[in-house]
Amino acid sequence: MDESHSEIRVRYVETDQMGIAHHSSYLAWLEIARTDFLRMRGMPYRTLEENGIRMPVLEVRLRYRAPARYDDSLTVAARLERSTPVRFSFAYTVSRTEDGKVLCEGSTEHAATDLNGRARRIPREICSVIGGSRAES
Amino acid sequence: MDESHSEIRVRYVETDQMGIAHHSSYLAWLEIARTDFLRMRGMPYRTLEENGIRMPVLEVRLRYRAPARYDDSLTVAARLERSTPVRFSFAYTVSRTEDGKVLCEGSTEHAATDLNGRARRIPREICSVIGGSRAES
Amino acid sequence: MDESHSEIRVRYVETDQMGIAHHSSYLAWLEIARTDFLRMRGMPYRTLEENGIRMPVLEVRLRYRAPARYDDSLTVAARLERSTPVRFSFAYTVSRTEDGKVLCEGSTEHAATDLNGRARRIPREICSVIGGSRAES
Amino acid sequence: MDESHSEIRVRYVETDQMGIAHHSSYLAWLEIARTDFLRMRGMPYRTLEENGIRMPVLEVRLRYRAPARYDDSLTVAARLERSTPVRFSFAYTVSRTEDGKVLCEGSTEHAATDLNGRARRIPREICSVIGGSRAES
Repeated sequence: MDESHSEIRVRYVETDQMGIAHHSSYLAWLEIARTDFLRMRGMPYRTLEENGIRMPVLEVRLRYRAPARYDDSLTVAARLERSTPVRFSFAYTVSRTEDGKVLCEGSTEHAATDLNGRARRIPREICSVIGGSRAES
Repeated sequence: MDESHSEIRVRYVETDQMGIAHHSSYLAWLEIARTDFLRMRGMPYRTLEENGIRMPVLEVRLRYRAPARYDDSLTVAARLERSTPVRFSFAYTVSRTEDGKVLCEGSTEHAATDLNGRARRIPREICSVIGGSRAES
Repeated sequence: MDESHSEIRVRYVETDQMGIAHHSSYLAWLEIARTDFLRMRGMPYRTLEENGIRMPVLEVRLRYRAPARYDDSLTVAARLERSTPVRFSFAYTVSRTEDGKVLCEGSTEHAATDLNGRARRIPREICSVIGGSRAES
Repeated sequence: MDESHSEIRVRYVETDQMGIAHHSSYLAWLEIARTDFLRMRGMPYRTLEENGIRMPVLEVRLRYRAPARYDDSLTVAARLERSTPVRFSFAYTVSRTEDGKVLCEGSTEHAATDLNGRARRIPREICSVIGGSRAES
């Protein structure tokens, strides 16, 4: 429960004329991984938005180690690094499913806002679900 | 005033591993052309949305004649084909600016809806501005 | 074996400010469905390219019936409609997995080309695999 | 000549259901800015590729300060930060053209490779053009 794993298959549209997945595709993949992480914790992002909470991205770091190619199956591992009522950060590892080779490492930092983009605190209950500290009794 | 012309430069991210612009990129370009057409008529799409009107796409047809390549400068011509208070259609020609070669022809059909996606009629005044029938006195 | 079915989950990046999946996203989904269809027939698109064959899109038609939303699970059915050594067409139905509601119907037509984009004939053997006419003895 | 400036208009397809430009769009914009920087220096990226040189992205950092919205006109400033025969880095500032408000700051680091993705040295002549150190005599 500390790390989610998402399976991604590289789409043709995600390749560029270098013959590899374009570096911007990884941001979409990290987003899927983040979504899956929250779902795993029992708090789908969709539910967050229904509760008037959004988590816009404040910061992104990506370090590309090796290219991903069309039709490659990738595994994106996501972990919550830091979580406060107003700020979150996630770390990610994108690897090739077939041989486990690490293709990219990244992190994202997020604010908590209301639906109009204004900073807000996330209710403690939701926060503890995301943080995984709530006992599943 | 019957046709708008938009200049587009093919982005690297829009290419795929065939070494040409991916066929889905054209939909983004037609959307820019539509936006420019409405701006030319004095009714930016942004203003439409501010007036509670949206124009979701009902139908798309695209016929690709020749590939567009990275860094090519393209001209997208847009024309309003049909306009009623509840339905619009546009036709487009994408050509290479350098030599005028036609790369793609397309059309889109749109409904008029409110901000919740429900069908609505467009007020006559706005309709006549878009249709170009209002005298600019 | 006459129809492939691909599962897609709508990505956040695929939504637009209407709050629905942008109409261009469907082209990426149809492409995945096409890829899955060819894989089902035992001729992955990747293998086609390795054999010096590409299938650029000549024509697209899309008819949108209802919006797809963030995190929706979609099923894309793909069928081969016509197949000759120089031309292919596919038909698709995108439906919401949960209730089977049809969201979009579409078709694409493709040329067969070499890796430089020149028209070529597809070898009979490959053609019959794609067409499903080869007995799996 | 030390900084290039690129004008970008936010596309509808680049927005997401938060009603702002998706954070991945910025990578496409930085790429345009990089392309324009190289063009300004007299060494279009297209020419680099024609000379057998590619500059895949090794690292990305983005810090988002304020959202960009549909149809906003943006200015992306790009500067070369570091340039060696095997490694480049660029820094960028994305601001709203209308009022100069800074929306995002970023940097990218690049390797020099051949067309097959293997590390290579960039010829001194090309390097000095990109670096701006060659006298335009």
